[in-house]
Amino acid sequence: MSGVGGARPGGRTARTRDAVRRATLAELADKGFDGLTVEAVAARSGVHKTTVYRRWRNAAGLAADALDLAAEEAWPLPDTGTVQGDLRAITAMVVHGFEDPERGPTARALVVAAVHEPITGEALHGFLTGRLAQAEEVVERAIARGELPVGTDAGEVVRTAVGALYYRLFITNEPVCAGQARRSADAAVVAARAGVFVRDQA
Amino acid sequence: MSGVGGARPGGRTARTRDAVRRATLAELADKGFDGLTVEAVAARSGVHKTTVYRRWRNAAGLAADALDLAAEEAWPLPDTGTVQGDLRAITAMVVHGFEDPERGPTARALVVAAVHEPITGEALHGFLTGRLAQAEEVVERAIARGELPVGTDAGEVVRTAVGALYYRLFITNEPVCAGQARRSADAAVVAARAGVFVRDQA
Repeated sequence: MSGVGGARPGGRTARTRDAVRRATLAELADKGFDGLTVEAVAARSGVHKTTVYRRWRNAAGLAADALDLAAEEAWPLPDTGTVQGDLRAITAMVVHGFEDPERGPTARALVVAAVHEPITGEALHGFLTGRLAQAEEVVERAIARGELPVGTDAGEVVRTAVGALYYRLFITNEPVCAGQARRSADAAVVAARAGVFVRDQA
Repeated sequence: MSGVGGARPGGRTARTRDAVRRATLAELADKGFDGLTVEAVAARSGVHKTTVYRRWRNAAGLAADALDLAAEEAWPLPDTGTVQGDLRAITAMVVHGFEDPERGPTARALVVAAVHEPITGEALHGFLTGRLAQAEEVVERAIARGELPVGTDAGEVVRTAVGALYYRLFITNEPVCAGQARRSADAAVVAARAGVFVRDQA
């Protein structure tokens, strides 16, 4: 896309943004969102503090940009051959993503920041609705295979599969386990098969 | 419970706590959690500022106590005759509670505070697990009536019914409607009937 004289993709701007993003994620893992500061991200990334202030403004802006960049990353959509297998793989990924001792604290800190800070919340909205739109593909494939009724609202199916897990993780603050991830996926599949999520006819 | 010389229930301490709670809820409705201050609550409630500081410490403590008091309030458990009717009534109440122009902003502010502040999060955990335990009664009655399989985990059924709604309201930040509340309840019922939430046999 870049012509003569245009910014090279992967050039200095992209490298700066990536360095700041990696520093933001590392700081979130170490100190949580309340401990995230422009100063610490500047020091960790080697990017000048005034540059970080000018482009990202504050902790909420840093967390939002980390989410925006994550939204651009490829995501391995499962394809197990059944909608039950696919949704079980997706709910297992959700639980693993937050419970993993390595990546979990950063992922949790980003969601907590998003609930509290409007700009980060907007970024999480974009990130999750993007991921959910991709996940809807497993439902669309199931409809095409005849596994689920024609007219099933794929968005509602995937939100039903993952919703109860986020509810426990962030709202009631209860532990989640692999069994709950499996049953949450199964519940969405059984309800979808029964036609609960078929859109009303006009 | 109070003997001779004991504090009278509904006495001065209870009145102070109630005045502070009502002022906290009014401030939350007006200004959100980020605008909640001990000073404003003291001024609004007529309780001396040093008393409010000493007993509630800060905004997180004020929000936590409002939740603790809400947890003690009676809650009208639906009894429509079917688990589907009961769970539909419960999910409708959840959506109404957050979307209502009058009470919605306060309820949302309390959840947002809880995700961000540990002490408020602990209070929300207590409030919601208490309400969910009461709501489980509609599932236990359905098991007793033969509507749902023996061994169904009532806690998972009610969390599945409400989880996707909280997910939209607080995590993905998407609008929720009465139709989604109904389908979320129906999904939990259909899955429960199919035995998805039957506890594993030892």
